[in-house]
Amino acid sequence: MKHQLLFLGKIKDKFIEDGVAEYASRLQHYTSFSITILKEKVRGRGKVLSPEDQGKLLLQAVPQGATTVVLDSNGKQFSSEAFSQKIDQWEMQGTKQVCYLIGGPDGHADEVLRAADLLVSLSKMTFTHDMARLLLVEQLYRAYTIKAGEQYHK
Amino acid sequence: MKHQLLFLGKIKDKFIEDGVAEYASRLQHYTSFSITILKEKVRGRGKVLSPEDQGKLLLQAVPQGATTVVLDSNGKQFSSEAFSQKIDQWEMQGTKQVCYLIGGPDGHADEVLRAADLLVSLSKMTFTHDMARLLLVEQLYRAYTIKAGEQYHK
Repeated sequence: MKHQLLFLGKIKDKFIEDGVAEYASRLQHYTSFSITILKEKVRGRGKVLSPEDQGKLLLQAVPQGATTVVLDSNGKQFSSEAFSQKIDQWEMQGTKQVCYLIGGPDGHADEVLRAADLLVSLSKMTFTHDMARLLLVEQLYRAYTIKAGEQYHK
Repeated sequence: MKHQLLFLGKIKDKFIEDGVAEYASRLQHYTSFSITILKEKVRGRGKVLSPEDQGKLLLQAVPQGATTVVLDSNGKQFSSEAFSQKIDQWEMQGTKQVCYLIGGPDGHADEVLRAADLLVSLSKMTFTHDMARLLLVEQLYRAYTIKAGEQYHK
């Protein structure tokens, strides 16, 4: 099963970039994993797209038939174990690809929320979308270590 | 009001260290803030202390009269706004110092949980204690930008 993370805009903080790269590299040992970064700005103008246009861009990038997971503050909270079981469940259902959509600072357009197969909330707290990227990659890595029954420091 | 973070052991991941330093530096503009790192190992032996001994070490480091906040998976989940209001409340009550205790991989000893004025959970998900440190510092910074009515990217 492939996991594809769809990010809007580049990571701003260097330490987040390093952290995402670290977990992405570890994840490669367990599963097919990729990050696609979409441009959040209008070409040549430096103007940031509206949430609606960002949403269209994100949805266009989701491959046909992929399960769409949208990170949203009103989504379901999973424990790390439950998230790991969710991945097991997708695999057993024959899911080929899961796409994770992280929105910009203004959240997701309604169109994106409606298109989601699953809405996930990482915490009741609000994080920067950069931080959400790091947390998601870390939780994916953690999910696979749980699946593999491996010891991973808490 | 002073915020003091009590960490057990050094931060292992370089990117977390960089992130904590970044937010710690930003926080200094708003409030008195410090990080104290306690040794998790027995001197000269390289043996990690038991959760009970770690707990004793943490509690000894809490200054007399400080409000004790313990990060624990069974704690109360706050939204970022509610956490900011909690800080307001402490200030209005004349609290001089708040100490935040983050445990090791095996969680906190019962003694630490009993000594807590407040148990806080950052998420239903499990994070490394390194990641919990980063999240806590970021949420403290966010709380002060919310208090100041400032715009801080989400």
